[in-house]
Amino acid sequence: MAILTRPILEINLNNLLDNYMQLKALSGRAKAAAVVKDDAYGLGAEIVARKLYNDGGCRHFFVAHGIEGERIRNLVPDAAIYVLQGIGEDSLDSFRRARLIPVIGSPEMFAWWKENRIEGIKPVIQIETGLNRLGFRESELEELSDADRSEFSMVLSHLACADAKEHFMNQHQLDNFRRLKEKYFPKLPATLSASDGTFLGADYQWDMVRLGAAMYGINTAPYRENQMKSVVTVKAPVLQIADLPKGDFVGYSATYRATEDRRLAIVSIGYGDGIPRSLSNVGKVFFNICGRIHEARILGRLSMDNIICDVTEADGLQVGDTAGILTDYYTLDDMGRDAGTIGYEILSRIGKNTRYMRTYIGE
Amino acid sequence: MAILTRPILEINLNNLLDNYMQLKALSGRAKAAAVVKDDAYGLGAEIVARKLYNDGGCRHFFVAHGIEGERIRNLVPDAAIYVLQGIGEDSLDSFRRARLIPVIGSPEMFAWWKENRIEGIKPVIQIETGLNRLGFRESELEELSDADRSEFSMVLSHLACADAKEHFMNQHQLDNFRRLKEKYFPKLPATLSASDGTFLGADYQWDMVRLGAAMYGINTAPYRENQMKSVVTVKAPVLQIADLPKGDFVGYSATYRATEDRRLAIVSIGYGDGIPRSLSNVGKVFFNICGRIHEARILGRLSMDNIICDVTEADGLQVGDTAGILTDYYTLDDMGRDAGTIGYEILSRIGKNTRYMRTYIGE
Repeated sequence: MAILTRPILEINLNNLLDNYMQLKALSGRAKAAAVVKDDAYGLGAEIVARKLYNDGGCRHFFVAHGIEGERIRNLVPDAAIYVLQGIGEDSLDSFRRARLIPVIGSPEMFAWWKENRIEGIKPVIQIETGLNRLGFRESELEELSDADRSEFSMVLSHLACADAKEHFMNQHQLDNFRRLKEKYFPKLPATLSASDGTFLGADYQWDMVRLGAAMYGINTAPYRENQMKSVVTVKAPVLQIADLPKGDFVGYSATYRATEDRRLAIVSIGYGDGIPRSLSNVGKVFFNICGRIHEARILGRLSMDNIICDVTEADGLQVGDTAGILTDYYTLDDMGRDAGTIGYEILSRIGKNTRYMRTYIGE
Repeated sequence: MAILTRPILEINLNNLLDNYMQLKALSGRAKAAAVVKDDAYGLGAEIVARKLYNDGGCRHFFVAHGIEGERIRNLVPDAAIYVLQGIGEDSLDSFRRARLIPVIGSPEMFAWWKENRIEGIKPVIQIETGLNRLGFRESELEELSDADRSEFSMVLSHLACADAKEHFMNQHQLDNFRRLKEKYFPKLPATLSASDGTFLGADYQWDMVRLGAAMYGINTAPYRENQMKSVVTVKAPVLQIADLPKGDFVGYSATYRATEDRRLAIVSIGYGDGIPRSLSNVGKVFFNICGRIHEARILGRLSMDNIICDVTEADGLQVGDTAGILTDYYTLDDMGRDAGTIGYEILSRIGKNTRYMRTYIGE
């Protein structure tokens, strides 16, 4: 019997690369840019960017903040790195040192840019088409002079509902994008879609797609089965197996009470490892017992370091066995659904925790 | 007008130390141990441990995993470091190198310990008193020989409902703890309470209290107003202010629709910075406009990098102003409540994100 205490995070870079290549093939003539913001959604931007650059031929990367771009620069020496949140006083040095390209989404930021231009860098302009987030509104585009418009190298917008194929917003935003681009920037290349929009077909792909969530294994087109491979696996060891007597309570605030004698396993992972506390009493973990997958319900509140689950029927389970937390058959999307959120948020949480034994496949 | 893009995390170590000293004073003759697991709930275990060791005289620290103990060892050279998840094959080297003390909670781990003892280290035994998480059950305590029992240096258990002063579980667990300790380990020192139990009074404090959440500013005794000082402040700049026309939708999946013309601010922070996505359409951010605090409702889905909020009434607000995300008047507990979770989970998420401009006060 092994005695183990640490949770395990396995990141499959080969699957990530396969996903990227699959999405790239789907993108036709559009350039396939990789979104590695938020530390590549927690998976390690340096390692992910290097893999895509070396093995996938990727030469266009998107990050959210200047500091994120600077971190990957020496791994992707001649690639274009675009910064979605734009540029400001608190990031100018990163832009200069790492030759980053700001995405500028407001007249105020553009005015500031004109006072702080970096020679040889032509920013991207973000225009608003229906998300009502960052981007020039049409009234603001009208204010731009010809000289202003000539400062930019690409037009960018972002879709609100592209994960729902038939959503009316998709056509609405596409129409807005087409009209505004033709009117104000007829000669510039354009990018409209992230992963989800890429699946909507050639009309939405323009000159560049920005591949993020799907590359990391998330199903961004949930109206059909996921065609992406799993990139993230999380496991954690069973620290203890014990009886739960009828009538006893489980966990903080005593939110579960046993209506009959049951058997518990305590698994060494919790919200301190990025597993959402909202899985309390509703989530599940999985045990592979002699080739059969056993689903064990989470009992009571998930705590910072531990999950308590019901293994009454898990004959043969032993201390030291590992529980599957995120697996090929229980994915980020599944956990997102059970936790009342989306796989993106789960993914963004998991990889930032240093308690994991972390391994990369295909590094 | 300043143009800024990065969120800001400010950690007030002086307030953390004040909280520790206040809790220590409350703990009477019990030793005041500090819980710095989960990277000090994301705030930086090395920095927090050093502050408490140097300025607070703290000589007892709890972590969850061996690797966490090893990280702080050289900052607290002669302190006792206890490891709550215990010891195993995947952490033995950390225990040896850093002279850590395992908390052993199951017969299996104890059997393994007897094959892998570290000379000069006497483990703590965890006993189960009602939480139904880690710990020897009474039937397992009965199996221990006198020699087995003499291996341990302290008895530990953990309360389930100590944040509810009148909860029946408190007395129930105290009775169990008293009885089991007297029966099996009459001569050993004992520790039962974390922050919340410390507030329940002398009966619950025994020989050592384990101070975590309250030290970090969380109200662990929510039946009375918080007496702890705020440790964490989060702010983020406004990237853009724009009109939201009547009938327009906001954010992913178009979950908010304007019933009249409104005005939006886009704030440069999101779930990629640890702010819960469950604040979508229910949370709020704050602006200090000429000394008046303006509460701005979050509109639509919170995204990875941005929050969109309603600033229709926020006269005078400008691009570059900063939104208060966690403040003295909107604390971790407040955000936890609004997000459908607890301050502990929020805190554990925030500090692990490297995109923050991070400053320590009193380092």
